[in-house]
Amino acid sequence: MVKYCFGIDVGGTTVKCGFFNVEGEVLEKWEIPTRTENNGENILPDIAKSINEKIKERKLEKEEIAGVGIGVPGPVNDNGEVPYAVNLHWGYKNLVKEMEDMTGLKTRAGNDANVAALGEMWCGGGVGYHSLIMVTLGTGVGGGIIVNEKIVTGSHGAGGEIGHAHVEDDMDVACNCGNCGCLEQMASATGIAYLARKMMEETDEPSVIRRENVSAKTVFDGVKAGDALAMKVADKFGFYLGKALANFACVTDPEVFVIGGGVSKAGEVVLDYIKPYYQKYAFPSCKDAAFALAKLGNDAGIYGAAKLVLE
Amino acid sequence: MVKYCFGIDVGGTTVKCGFFNVEGEVLEKWEIPTRTENNGENILPDIAKSINEKIKERKLEKEEIAGVGIGVPGPVNDNGEVPYAVNLHWGYKNLVKEMEDMTGLKTRAGNDANVAALGEMWCGGGVGYHSLIMVTLGTGVGGGIIVNEKIVTGSHGAGGEIGHAHVEDDMDVACNCGNCGCLEQMASATGIAYLARKMMEETDEPSVIRRENVSAKTVFDGVKAGDALAMKVADKFGFYLGKALANFACVTDPEVFVIGGGVSKAGEVVLDYIKPYYQKYAFPSCKDAAFALAKLGNDAGIYGAAKLVLE
Repeated sequence: MVKYCFGIDVGGTTVKCGFFNVEGEVLEKWEIPTRTENNGENILPDIAKSINEKIKERKLEKEEIAGVGIGVPGPVNDNGEVPYAVNLHWGYKNLVKEMEDMTGLKTRAGNDANVAALGEMWCGGGVGYHSLIMVTLGTGVGGGIIVNEKIVTGSHGAGGEIGHAHVEDDMDVACNCGNCGCLEQMASATGIAYLARKMMEETDEPSVIRRENVSAKTVFDGVKAGDALAMKVADKFGFYLGKALANFACVTDPEVFVIGGGVSKAGEVVLDYIKPYYQKYAFPSCKDAAFALAKLGNDAGIYGAAKLVLE
Repeated sequence: MVKYCFGIDVGGTTVKCGFFNVEGEVLEKWEIPTRTENNGENILPDIAKSINEKIKERKLEKEEIAGVGIGVPGPVNDNGEVPYAVNLHWGYKNLVKEMEDMTGLKTRAGNDANVAALGEMWCGGGVGYHSLIMVTLGTGVGGGIIVNEKIVTGSHGAGGEIGHAHVEDDMDVACNCGNCGCLEQMASATGIAYLARKMMEETDEPSVIRRENVSAKTVFDGVKAGDALAMKVADKFGFYLGKALANFACVTDPEVFVIGGGVSKAGEVVLDYIKPYYQKYAFPSCKDAAFALAKLGNDAGIYGAAKLVLE
């Protein structure tokens, strides 16, 4: 009888590993280093070795294990192949086949941001929903689209690349993607700091956020302290993100938006700035979509990876 | 052996009916009036009667028929229920159950715009693709999203309501939906006429489009005749639509955009104005998405409805 599975989240410096039961409880978590040297040729063998050791250590039968789910920082096609993954120094890799050969276990793979969305649906901020859009507000803006409990991978692996929606025509600084005016430039942690610096230049208004290193945290701390300029910055952030989410809603019409990443650590106040603009711009029947904070933090990836292989 | 199916497209004045083989050939097409009086209570019985007569006339066995697919102008949930359909004067209707009871045939239902997208994928401009976004440029802007050959219905039946993406902050006229600055106000046939009137007011430039009743057709005829002002109007239309499609691409990352509706009758020139802006604003890996004109015209609905029941 199938009782367990592995959820693996491959990052640029560390591989997070989770051993789960099929109900979604993580029974053990551990990490191994990501060895990117020699085009990352050791990464998958290291993971396979770690899994095989865990199976031996816990005296598991292979029949008890549903398999291995893996999230990677790059596009993954429906055959489980990775065309490239810059942060892992990978060119093309037939990930699923290699892992199945090395472990003898069914393997499923997905893009890490998409997989995190699945994790939040399974055991986090999106529990009970079947259709969601996950937004990760970190250094960049990541996203994952779930429709009827399935990840929308996209035909170029770009499903959920919502950080690169165009939201500002008057922006002449280029985004990492090469375009100008991307959501990521306005609503990520970096983007919020950019908005803050811009607003501080435009006014002499005194504010607690006037520091050398203004950050998204400085801004939301300022908001909580009742600082007027911080609130204006947060409002601008909410304008960009709320409007963008309204436009995404008329594509897949999700039940819930789950907001995660470093910026979301400021708490419900972040949602308070997004929702009014979302509701202003959303198509009427989408206006009552729910908003929730992500709950799994850095573990969303291992949860989602585990869920991948249970499908 | 299953050989045939029915595809039904319910409009506000006429019900289009098609009798198909399972390969996607329409063997017969006919129409019946849509009787909307008394809350549209006759609409489904009229359709069932017409289907039952056709079965008798063609001496078909029920085992030969896959079933009946129906597209309706309103939201349809995954259980085949219609909460309301304004143009049919319907309140709540358990459409699939009623039709199955009256015909003894498996029935599937969907929103007409979504179903048309499925039709174009099956037998029209989207043949050979599995993931597409259909855009219908008529009086309004309709849409349908297909991911891995399945319609994205959305949690409020608003999947593909792309005509109501917000694209213009400086718009104080309200859209039919109640919001201001929707794509539909800028890129539908009505929207193109609005852009033309606005540009004509802003300049004295002579132009062949300076008529009392400027329309999308006048504009694209002007473009084909080399009229400078017509080209500026078309360029503005392309800016709004191309940018919006780029933002939709970072949600579902389709293989192809299929452009249909009355405006698309102007031909490839319409795509020539959309594509440059799409490519400018799209996430890099989405820039090579294909663009195609719809091919089925008003028959897209019956084709898509037929395909619904073959799934």
